[in-house]
Amino acid sequence: MTQLLAARAGRITPEMVRAAADEGIKPKELADKIACGVAVLPFNKKLDDTYRAVAIGEKLKTKVNANIGTSRDRADLEMEVCKARVAEEAGADSVMDLSTGGDLDVIRDKIFKAIRLPLGTVPIYEAASAADDDGRDFHKITPDDIFEIIGRHAEEGVSFITVHCGVTRDSVKRLKNEGRVLGIVSRGGALLADWMVHNDAENPLYEQFDRLVEICLEHDVTLSLGDGLRPGCLADATDRGQVSELVLLGELTDRAREAGAQVMIEGPGHIPLDEVAENVRIQKNLCGGAPFYVLGPLVTDVAPGYDHITAAIGGAIAAAAGADFLCYVTPAEHLCLPILEDVRLGVMGARIAAHAGDIVKGVPGAAEYDREMAEARAELDWRRQIDLAIDPDEAEKRRSGDIPTVSSETCTMCSNLCAIKVSKEALRRS
Amino acid sequence: MTQLLAARAGRITPEMVRAAADEGIKPKELADKIACGVAVLPFNKKLDDTYRAVAIGEKLKTKVNANIGTSRDRADLEMEVCKARVAEEAGADSVMDLSTGGDLDVIRDKIFKAIRLPLGTVPIYEAASAADDDGRDFHKITPDDIFEIIGRHAEEGVSFITVHCGVTRDSVKRLKNEGRVLGIVSRGGALLADWMVHNDAENPLYEQFDRLVEICLEHDVTLSLGDGLRPGCLADATDRGQVSELVLLGELTDRAREAGAQVMIEGPGHIPLDEVAENVRIQKNLCGGAPFYVLGPLVTDVAPGYDHITAAIGGAIAAAAGADFLCYVTPAEHLCLPILEDVRLGVMGARIAAHAGDIVKGVPGAAEYDREMAEARAELDWRRQIDLAIDPDEAEKRRSGDIPTVSSETCTMCSNLCAIKVSKEALRRS
Repeated sequence: MTQLLAARAGRITPEMVRAAADEGIKPKELADKIACGVAVLPFNKKLDDTYRAVAIGEKLKTKVNANIGTSRDRADLEMEVCKARVAEEAGADSVMDLSTGGDLDVIRDKIFKAIRLPLGTVPIYEAASAADDDGRDFHKITPDDIFEIIGRHAEEGVSFITVHCGVTRDSVKRLKNEGRVLGIVSRGGALLADWMVHNDAENPLYEQFDRLVEICLEHDVTLSLGDGLRPGCLADATDRGQVSELVLLGELTDRAREAGAQVMIEGPGHIPLDEVAENVRIQKNLCGGAPFYVLGPLVTDVAPGYDHITAAIGGAIAAAAGADFLCYVTPAEHLCLPILEDVRLGVMGARIAAHAGDIVKGVPGAAEYDREMAEARAELDWRRQIDLAIDPDEAEKRRSGDIPTVSSETCTMCSNLCAIKVSKEALRRS
Repeated sequence: MTQLLAARAGRITPEMVRAAADEGIKPKELADKIACGVAVLPFNKKLDDTYRAVAIGEKLKTKVNANIGTSRDRADLEMEVCKARVAEEAGADSVMDLSTGGDLDVIRDKIFKAIRLPLGTVPIYEAASAADDDGRDFHKITPDDIFEIIGRHAEEGVSFITVHCGVTRDSVKRLKNEGRVLGIVSRGGALLADWMVHNDAENPLYEQFDRLVEICLEHDVTLSLGDGLRPGCLADATDRGQVSELVLLGELTDRAREAGAQVMIEGPGHIPLDEVAENVRIQKNLCGGAPFYVLGPLVTDVAPGYDHITAAIGGAIAAAAGADFLCYVTPAEHLCLPILEDVRLGVMGARIAAHAGDIVKGVPGAAEYDREMAEARAELDWRRQIDLAIDPDEAEKRRSGDIPTVSSETCTMCSNLCAIKVSKEALRRS
């Protein structure tokens, strides 16, 4: 039974109990959300209770995913395992292994052992990687090859898989007819489009969607319906290709849910700031309120080296508008494979965005957290300010590295001219 | 004659010509905005044409200010001059010297010589600093002391001054009556409130506002009417103290404009994400469309160490909603005086926010810039991507430090599985 089928049958699973506790809500409340599909709980049946049970969806804390993984150019397995650990320590709620270089089974196995977060994958990457290993073109692989890999990931314990089921002959044609500056920027989407063109065939993940759902039901793998046609630049945002795909994903959501599989929807990508909220609303409308998992979004194309900031801007607005799950973007995006520090910065940027959104969403405890920090500041209580910081280590490092001497209860920026200190006395006497 | 009086008289000054060229608009168009006060051009009469002429206001590029300056705890003059240079190199449009430690005249003089940006100050800081140097309490200084300092800054060439004229007995009382978690967090606001309480007197910058305007008219110093009662935490945002002060600032804007002085308005601070746009709109309504100069805003209180990101989120939303001028916030905010790298990161965060806003505002060239980057990506033209990056040095450093070997036209993240490369071929054939 999947978490969805359990919830629909009125059963509260141990994972629901744990995930609800993390949210500060009642398990029944979470179960109701899962039952109607506005929340998911990606937790492969193979996992034991040492793994975190993370719920994603309506009015729950906005969650953060960190992508890690080797590439065909950089296949340092140990480094990627370190990145998974850094992501977990920095507060990511899940990790996706996007490896395409080296022994992918070994990498996944090591990540499963290294961290206690639900793991996601993009099985089509393994198909592309295997083909490249054998010196074959990707489009020579068969639908059965793809489903074999999906089945294997499910059996190994992967909790959610990105599958680009909405990249179809129809949606790609619409994209092409309208014209785009930057074509298809989703790796999975591009690979599938390539496969379809060369084989003059429909996307097997769309055509054999029921087969996909069967695998998900067996292992309780959550479908993360990928946005293979997401815009890769502001000029391509919210175009017909993107929206056509989203319509298809909405229809597939209904089918998967009906069968009892958990579903979330992936979203952009690059979007102008004033289109971010509308992208969230149209996804909720078209996909029956399914959880929305956005990549960024990036609100400008011009800031390589700082895309964790660009993504934090879009992610915060998206979260405030109802996006449920933020895929981090690191400062290395558009330039190279991230290093460890990039992973940490990417997670922090996404966590800040998620929390800024949670305050607006009215997630229990979110505004209270900020109020606690404000009270610690009002009291010039530095120990408490550091403990409450979203990254206490970073705050501690700066504070302890630059202790004021003139007035130890303030900081080296304002010293004894600290506004809080001065105004407290003035307001008391006024 | 101030830029405002010149514009009102139908004169186009050399500074208007230069600033308009930077905007890609006609000088007459800029002059019209300045004439009616929806734009300002802070440029002290003493400056020569080696200094940048920067216009700030309606539908102009959103500008970025960097605060630097010594404190009572850290008075390393050379370091602050370095910070001013770093800010200019990183692309700041102006610098404010907020020094409170060391010989302040010498510091200002060195900054004037070191950079070619309009300089802003907060004269009340010098009054507080001088009093502290003499072992006196701030509230022992006289209104004449304050005006003497303001006059000196104006004579030296300061182009805009923050003056907290709206911190009055009335607005402070309203703030106190409603109650606040974090009191007054503006240093200037707190000092003035303290002075008013101890002397049982009205704010001299409010009472003698015409005297202030006279100085501004003589030297063409732009008034930056400070938000001394800005919220210092989300819980205090958009409260009666803040809005009462803004009403007063709107009234003072009318008076200054009528006399011919240029005016902009300072804004928060800490605001929940969904109150950012409304803060911009109410400022525009209450202050006759005067340029709005915001500090951040920070959309959460809990991220010390990352407040350049928190500020970029709020700044981008504010800019998109019509804010004209973003004061950067560095990662050191709330913890200590920033170091050089903090200054650089602060400027970059604010520039990204400004640009993301400009795309939405429809500032000429903004969306086109992103499109150019997208085209460079479509062509896998790395030289052009780096040259177009908001920080070419940072992009170059990452790219040249991690060159792919498998497929040199892609990057080490996707290697030969590059979506752009794969999809270009697929879409061509489809």
